[in-house]
Amino acid sequence: MTTSVLSKQALLEHWQGHRNLTRRVILAFPEKELFEYAVGGMRPFALLVQEMIAIAGPALKSIVNNETNAYQEADGIKTKEALLTKWDEETAVINHYYNLLSEERFQETFNLFGQYEFKIIDNIFYFIDNEIHHRGQGYVYLRSLGIEPPYFWER
Amino acid sequence: MTTSVLSKQALLEHWQGHRNLTRRVILAFPEKELFEYAVGGMRPFALLVQEMIAIAGPALKSIVNNETNAYQEADGIKTKEALLTKWDEETAVINHYYNLLSEERFQETFNLFGQYEFKIIDNIFYFIDNEIHHRGQGYVYLRSLGIEPPYFWER
Repeated sequence: MTTSVLSKQALLEHWQGHRNLTRRVILAFPEKELFEYAVGGMRPFALLVQEMIAIAGPALKSIVNNETNAYQEADGIKTKEALLTKWDEETAVINHYYNLLSEERFQETFNLFGQYEFKIIDNIFYFIDNEIHHRGQGYVYLRSLGIEPPYFWER
Repeated sequence: MTTSVLSKQALLEHWQGHRNLTRRVILAFPEKELFEYAVGGMRPFALLVQEMIAIAGPALKSIVNNETNAYQEADGIKTKEALLTKWDEETAVINHYYNLLSEERFQETFNLFGQYEFKIIDNIFYFIDNEIHHRGQGYVYLRSLGIEPPYFWER
């Protein structure tokens, strides 16, 4: 039950590999459709990406500092260039705070955003899985715009 | 670099938690739309689910038995009930073969379907992530049908 199958470093590489793919999905959108186009009454991809940005770095910082911060919705980014710049800034933020998190803490519980009381390892899986989930939705938007998305398995 | 953050058992629970959510997404589709409806020229959700079924159990069995088998596309299931039955059978197949896989093997490489040469841990992440990716697309189909999907964080 306690044998381990994943190193801390491998999980970061897995996460940043997914983030690298999401960056290429952002790039695949035309500027206007990135901010305005959606299917089924859902949010445009730029808003889904701003949700990812509002979760990953801020949540990891809260975990490392052991502070409970409320979720801060983000929708202030209005251009593709600014979105990509913020994305890259968060890549560095994630690497920074992740490296400050000790292996021992991954099994501790943390009340994320004061709302989701789970083990830290499960919080981190949530950040990754939520990104995969919404990025998959971005693939549908791209397909319905007639644009070929990046290959899912390329990170 | 070699400290570990995830137990073998926790990864199985994470995986089966996702599979349980996917099962509820299948249930949320009306029978006809499950097999016929899609957005952007993509495959209907029943075909995405049959891809998940063609990957997870068969791939895990190949890994455990150290046999390279080609990917066998699956599209023969024609009713929601049969799809759910097959889904539940695969739940048991996955549990069975997963329990036969030793912790030591997770860091070995395996040439999945004779095509994807990755560590076994990364192969398993691929099974999970591919399911999240396509399930996220099923959410768009449901939303565009006016149907509320299950909460993403409920497993």
